[in-house]
Amino acid sequence: MASTEETPIRFGILGCAEIARKLSRAITLAPNADLYAVASRTIEKAKAFASSNGFPSHAKIYGSYDSLLDDPEIDVVYIPLPTSLHLHWAVLAAKKKKHILLEKPVALNASEFDTIVEACESNGVQLMDGTMWMHHPRTAAMREFLSDSNRFGQLKTVHTIFTFAADPDFLKNDIRVKPDLDALGALGDAGWYCIRSILWTANYELPKKAVAMPGAVFNDHGVIIACGASLHWEDGKVATFQCSFLSNMAMDITAVGSKGTLHVNDFVIPYQEHEAHFSAATESWFNELVTGWVPKPSKHIIAADLPQETRMVCEFSNLVRAIKKGSKPEKHWPTISRKTQLVIDAVKASVDKGFEPVEVGN
Amino acid sequence: MASTEETPIRFGILGCAEIARKLSRAITLAPNADLYAVASRTIEKAKAFASSNGFPSHAKIYGSYDSLLDDPEIDVVYIPLPTSLHLHWAVLAAKKKKHILLEKPVALNASEFDTIVEACESNGVQLMDGTMWMHHPRTAAMREFLSDSNRFGQLKTVHTIFTFAADPDFLKNDIRVKPDLDALGALGDAGWYCIRSILWTANYELPKKAVAMPGAVFNDHGVIIACGASLHWEDGKVATFQCSFLSNMAMDITAVGSKGTLHVNDFVIPYQEHEAHFSAATESWFNELVTGWVPKPSKHIIAADLPQETRMVCEFSNLVRAIKKGSKPEKHWPTISRKTQLVIDAVKASVDKGFEPVEVGN
Repeated sequence: MASTEETPIRFGILGCAEIARKLSRAITLAPNADLYAVASRTIEKAKAFASSNGFPSHAKIYGSYDSLLDDPEIDVVYIPLPTSLHLHWAVLAAKKKKHILLEKPVALNASEFDTIVEACESNGVQLMDGTMWMHHPRTAAMREFLSDSNRFGQLKTVHTIFTFAADPDFLKNDIRVKPDLDALGALGDAGWYCIRSILWTANYELPKKAVAMPGAVFNDHGVIIACGASLHWEDGKVATFQCSFLSNMAMDITAVGSKGTLHVNDFVIPYQEHEAHFSAATESWFNELVTGWVPKPSKHIIAADLPQETRMVCEFSNLVRAIKKGSKPEKHWPTISRKTQLVIDAVKASVDKGFEPVEVGN
Repeated sequence: MASTEETPIRFGILGCAEIARKLSRAITLAPNADLYAVASRTIEKAKAFASSNGFPSHAKIYGSYDSLLDDPEIDVVYIPLPTSLHLHWAVLAAKKKKHILLEKPVALNASEFDTIVEACESNGVQLMDGTMWMHHPRTAAMREFLSDSNRFGQLKTVHTIFTFAADPDFLKNDIRVKPDLDALGALGDAGWYCIRSILWTANYELPKKAVAMPGAVFNDHGVIIACGASLHWEDGKVATFQCSFLSNMAMDITAVGSKGTLHVNDFVIPYQEHEAHFSAATESWFNELVTGWVPKPSKHIIAADLPQETRMVCEFSNLVRAIKKGSKPEKHWPTISRKTQLVIDAVKASVDKGFEPVEVGN
């Protein structure tokens, strides 16, 4: 709902995915955004979605994605469609001059994503992926720690994990296990967060090499439902990650530098909305008889005035407003989406080659 | 110091290593053990060690390791000597009918260790390695969680790390970086803890395969000062670890099962002596809009009445007392030492083969 003097940025949602419910609330809570329209393949489904997700009375309800894209009042489309549909709808949205908030994984591979980026660039629209935790104030606080040469030093190793134990219905029916909808499976879903967090930790320096680990699990259609990999940089930095639909929930970043250590155990979705914490240690050592730590790690608690997905919507809306006033689209966001996708592609290739090392593209 | 009615078990210490100071205190605090003797290669050094580490007035001071081993009053020898000396002194101690508390890594390789085990078995003496955290009451509490099929389920993945940023003097002069003293370097030191904790998590089931990660760091003498590896079981379980002398302190076990998640960030040396904690989660899921966790992980705080190394000394003394009364030596401890060494050997072989997968011996 708008609360500023400037006209709020109008969002249209393509499809009624489960995640779109969360985004609808996020847009409602964002002071500079307007929950303006939703489209589904049937108007009944779109109507039901709008009424159960607090759409305002002025909201437009569309029975096709095309008709939503043809609405000239809409500034932004949020695309939570299955990954295999991203190329078609994101390119079309760009051509219709819509700014695009695109769910992850952004595409089936980096080459597809490049086509989306080209469409956005040639039409002057902003592109950002829907990685919400990037926008939490905790993320900025952790970044400050990692960037501090006195407190963290040089990154040496990072381990990330995102797992959750999906129920039998998910494992049979969710779009994320269907080869024709989300062919990247757990790697494209949970693995996206692991890889993004590793790149974030490494200040977006791409690794040279990815090596998938033996033990990857596939469903009957050959879709990855659990896997891990290590990533390797020229300077010796090593990252490892595990992503899975088959293990209890875990969402860790453990980053160790020459001088400091960072731990966070709920990086994707904080335990609760109003605050989040992380642990940081600098120049930890033992006490005299090696029976304790000096100093102990410190716990940092970060208050969150708005949900992280609302902050994402706000930030995106600010970029769109700036473009309306003459700024160029911000390249940072599609650049880090692309790097994340490049690493996914390399890990997938390593899995396909029987866990051989694969060079990361650029 | 003894406080029970039975005669305390008499400990002799071979050498004045830094870690022996901690063990001297541990023996002093153990109600069933007596800090009875110390030997060094010079009697002056042994005297100075005894006087600065609270040895009782009745303690024996020896100017050679042989003379300590010849003292018939001594029940146990604690061997904190450089790894390359373990074979000689442990075998000799066993022949002298001394029970042996042996620092890690127990040997330069499993074959050497087998010779030590044979000497202990044929002389009827107890053998245990000095992995202190195994004896903390927290370890038993975490074991209970991991063994609970309802709270943790089946182990899927575990990541462990033990790193510390050694100073320039350590990196130049410590025995752990010398090829003739501790040829296994960081792998034998910090890596021992990582591998032991992985085996502990996996209920001591040996992995089939070890794959060292590119990025291992060696000193000028070819000794490993940082490395990582992944371990693979037939059922698909995967473990990863990182050990290093070049990164800030970290000591994590992150174990994820089909139903539960365990986190501990100070498993080797708890932050403080009097209590230690870990985090456990069971069947974690998201709240309705995926904006938080239900339930959140729970923090478990475990009080420690005695330091973990004192509990190790107590437990060892109890085993020795039982043997004096006719029991057989407990095979559990040398068995898990051997498994730890077997995995170290496989990781070392993988490093030497340019990070090729290596079968773990048995």
